[in-house]
Amino acid sequence: MPENTIINFCPTGMVPTTGDTPHVPVQVQQIIEEVHAAYELGITIAHLHARNSDETATSDPKVYQAIVEGVRRHCPDLLICLSTSGRNTKSFAARSAVIELQPDMCSLTLSSLNFINQASVNTPDTIVALADKMQAYGVNPELECFDMGMINYGKYLIEKEIIQGPFYWNLLFGNIAGMQAELTQMGNAIREIQTINNSQHFIALGALGARQLPVNAIAIASGYGVRVGLEDNTWYDRKRTIPASNMALLKRIHQLLALHERKVMPSRLLGEKGFYNHAVHTR
Amino acid sequence: MPENTIINFCPTGMVPTTGDTPHVPVQVQQIIEEVHAAYELGITIAHLHARNSDETATSDPKVYQAIVEGVRRHCPDLLICLSTSGRNTKSFAARSAVIELQPDMCSLTLSSLNFINQASVNTPDTIVALADKMQAYGVNPELECFDMGMINYGKYLIEKEIIQGPFYWNLLFGNIAGMQAELTQMGNAIREIQTINNSQHFIALGALGARQLPVNAIAIASGYGVRVGLEDNTWYDRKRTIPASNMALLKRIHQLLALHERKVMPSRLLGEKGFYNHAVHTR
Repeated sequence: MPENTIINFCPTGMVPTTGDTPHVPVQVQQIIEEVHAAYELGITIAHLHARNSDETATSDPKVYQAIVEGVRRHCPDLLICLSTSGRNTKSFAARSAVIELQPDMCSLTLSSLNFINQASVNTPDTIVALADKMQAYGVNPELECFDMGMINYGKYLIEKEIIQGPFYWNLLFGNIAGMQAELTQMGNAIREIQTINNSQHFIALGALGARQLPVNAIAIASGYGVRVGLEDNTWYDRKRTIPASNMALLKRIHQLLALHERKVMPSRLLGEKGFYNHAVHTR
Repeated sequence: MPENTIINFCPTGMVPTTGDTPHVPVQVQQIIEEVHAAYELGITIAHLHARNSDETATSDPKVYQAIVEGVRRHCPDLLICLSTSGRNTKSFAARSAVIELQPDMCSLTLSSLNFINQASVNTPDTIVALADKMQAYGVNPELECFDMGMINYGKYLIEKEIIQGPFYWNLLFGNIAGMQAELTQMGNAIREIQTINNSQHFIALGALGARQLPVNAIAIASGYGVRVGLEDNTWYDRKRTIPASNMALLKRIHQLLALHERKVMPSRLLGEKGFYNHAVHTR
């Protein structure tokens, strides 16, 4: 088991607004400052979403560009991952515009799925086109899996050489129509990736809502990375009485790391294993 | 393990045409005759799709009605299940019209998913509306699961009492963005259903393409039902040299049953456990 733990920090997401939870950073400057503070504490990857000034999700590359520039100024070696979510944006041009900003990574959700109240459609054509465009811009995909079938589709893309290693996987548990935060399902998902005889695989585990903490803790105890932040979970405690802040969630992860005698995987270490966008991070 | 094995017969589906494979029944009279022959041999449920005269898939209730009337004339106690697929039909009215024909069962796919070349969108709203309409017409849902998350969504519908037992589950393996025909995945899917402490569960296993035979055989050996027919698999042999016919596929299932000293679950036996539509099958 590696000594270092990947922390994939997801401070904003598409859904929570400051009306839902007070601490979520949604304006450009707020996101930049939050990522900077997290970087000072210790994270490996920042998984970022942009919002309009009214806090609704946007795929506008100008907003993303302002965020990326601000984050790079303060955190020059941080791995930056931008969302290509199609939940609210249907056109390929709009979804894929962020790739042209040449972040290190962009999210690649590996199938269509249902969330609790809506479908999120990612057709096979769209997935392949996103992967191709990422490759053209030196961007490594963040492989987002909510269910076993998405892992299998990732395996298919690897076999077809549509995506190239090393591979970074986010396994997300607890969506109502996805894998649940049960040890059997977590173990089988990880084992499925480990059957892929190809390149290096880095795996981080996250979960929606109250399962974020147990899934993160199980990941750290088992030697995997974590995805943590308000994007997935807005409450600090199980009884949902204390609104979470990103820094409080991160500090709890750092407590767990200390307890297990682990350290955060430095961005540079993971970046130089093949996740840096070489157009940006010259050696 | 039950002595009787459910055979869910799927002769037609939405995809294969007579140009693809010679033996697929697509015209109303062909489907009626094929189901009649299968019924004489021994099946439990007929899972039926309708086609236009040019063989494209249709949700036209008039075509379905002609099929249902013909099948009922020859096979009065057969459990009839009609498709509510949204793969080609987007509107709820069109998808759900078949429910008004009061078949015994209708398919209910429990999330959105990707097939190899397209997305199949079943939003949460649509799934719940289909389930409600089925209940209003005395129709029992055939719970179609291609991935673990769909089983979990079924569990959610059961907990919310949106669907009522007994429950019939089709677990379908081998879709590229779904569960694969691996013992781990098959076992975990079945085990997940067995954790639902509610009513009776009947489970049948099917698979796409060449995995149909091994998955059916593993199901029979393990005491579960099978879904079999040209809808899922158009080749008889592994090398894809012999086009399958529905009757050849069914006869092979009957050979396996004989070998395991099992019998086909009679329609009437399963129907009277709660799957008959009482508007049609009066006692």
